[in-house]
Amino acid sequence: MIQGSHAIDIRRRKSGATSGLEDHVAVEEPLEIRLGYATPDGRAHKAVSITMRTPGNDRELAAGFLFTESIVGRADDILAIDHCGPPSPATGYRNVIRVELAAHVDADLGRLQRHFYTTSSCGVCGKTSLDALHARGLSTFGEDPGRFRESVLLSIPGKLRAGQEAFAQTGGLHAAAAFDVGGQVTAVMEDVGRHNAVDKLVGHLLLDRGLPSDDLGLMVSGRASFELVQKALVAGFPLLAAVSAPSSLAVSLAREFNMTLVGFLRDDTFNVYAGAGRLGL
Amino acid sequence: MIQGSHAIDIRRRKSGATSGLEDHVAVEEPLEIRLGYATPDGRAHKAVSITMRTPGNDRELAAGFLFTESIVGRADDILAIDHCGPPSPATGYRNVIRVELAAHVDADLGRLQRHFYTTSSCGVCGKTSLDALHARGLSTFGEDPGRFRESVLLSIPGKLRAGQEAFAQTGGLHAAAAFDVGGQVTAVMEDVGRHNAVDKLVGHLLLDRGLPSDDLGLMVSGRASFELVQKALVAGFPLLAAVSAPSSLAVSLAREFNMTLVGFLRDDTFNVYAGAGRLGL
Repeated sequence: MIQGSHAIDIRRRKSGATSGLEDHVAVEEPLEIRLGYATPDGRAHKAVSITMRTPGNDRELAAGFLFTESIVGRADDILAIDHCGPPSPATGYRNVIRVELAAHVDADLGRLQRHFYTTSSCGVCGKTSLDALHARGLSTFGEDPGRFRESVLLSIPGKLRAGQEAFAQTGGLHAAAAFDVGGQVTAVMEDVGRHNAVDKLVGHLLLDRGLPSDDLGLMVSGRASFELVQKALVAGFPLLAAVSAPSSLAVSLAREFNMTLVGFLRDDTFNVYAGAGRLGL
Repeated sequence: MIQGSHAIDIRRRKSGATSGLEDHVAVEEPLEIRLGYATPDGRAHKAVSITMRTPGNDRELAAGFLFTESIVGRADDILAIDHCGPPSPATGYRNVIRVELAAHVDADLGRLQRHFYTTSSCGVCGKTSLDALHARGLSTFGEDPGRFRESVLLSIPGKLRAGQEAFAQTGGLHAAAAFDVGGQVTAVMEDVGRHNAVDKLVGHLLLDRGLPSDDLGLMVSGRASFELVQKALVAGFPLLAAVSAPSSLAVSLAREFNMTLVGFLRDDTFNVYAGAGRLGL
């Protein structure tokens, strides 16, 4: 359950007149993700990430973040996920979550730090961004002509909006949805951050043992960046559709791995930047 | 000069018909920021950040990033900023930039790492987010009734759009603009990332010795997050206006420091979330 909306008093100015009213804003709070892992002497804990997120589905967010960063590979790598520590004195939200890793997971923290660095730095140095992802063991999607029908694709934006409870109140939340080839939306997640919305969705699928998501499409509000395509690729979505524009590197990545990338999906119009065959086009 | 747009061949589907056309996408490439600093034995270099950005104004981006993270405090803290290393073999962009710090700047890297951590973690632990910013020495803006006229504010979105060269081609870039109380837009910066667009703008002002920006307003495309308000606060902007919604923590931060925060600024309408007095409302 998302705790995404917060009521505040504001002033609205319209055509030169001022009115005072109660408005709703999207909640943004920090979340610290801590890892618990086995050591020769027992167990240790270490903070590995802090992200500004909308409270709600924190377990899914933590699981999805660790999965898309390739720190965990399957649900069995995680023993437990629970909030820890007291609520924030300022806002009452619980902003620390601890993920206990199974003993078989290699949680060498030096490696983790190098890993984060390598993930982000792809393309800076010798290796290209795409080579770096191949090196992580990700494989190209197979041919799958006509797997997703156009009528299904066109129906998803409306279903996404219908599933966005907090957005309707605040206008300030991104959303990510998974949908099947029959056009059913199987999950919708919201967050102030697009990346978090996708991580929550991927984490939900992971904990529900629904990964890899090779039978599902992923739809996101807003734009398609390199990082979103990367997350979709790691989770196994063969199709990513965005309401708005993709970036150059998002297109390159989708083409390299034969993922279908759709942008500007609105009404009866969309652009296909990669993998048009999967839509039968 | 921004190198923000890249031509690619795509398929557009509209009302059941397909056409092939050349489209433009926003360029997204990684930028590694390295610090050069004095040590007892000479000088050393260390990578401190990697961000996905749109190439162009990289010097401003690096300077603004270091300023809004409080690693440098004024233009004299920086001796030189230059790209280093060869262009990316895949795309031809130069994706590493080195910032040489003056000898008087304390660049202890352990402190830097703790600093990054503290910046992001505010609110997670004992201190609230707002206390943590007070602890960084940021002070509350003074009263300044009617400093920005409504007519000026309403004129800025059109000027921002007019200044967005690459957005007009791609639909995929965020923008940040500084404007004075007379309504003149003094600088516009674009990037695939909102935070980068603001860092480029702040870096431009820093290198031009235009900080603190207490006579200027800041306008951003998209939403106003906690991090954007924080950057505006560090740079000294007493007013931040966004095209879209603010988050809960953005509103709290603006109210705490008496910054004027405007959202949903479109046509003749806007919401004031904090500091209405500065607009004479």
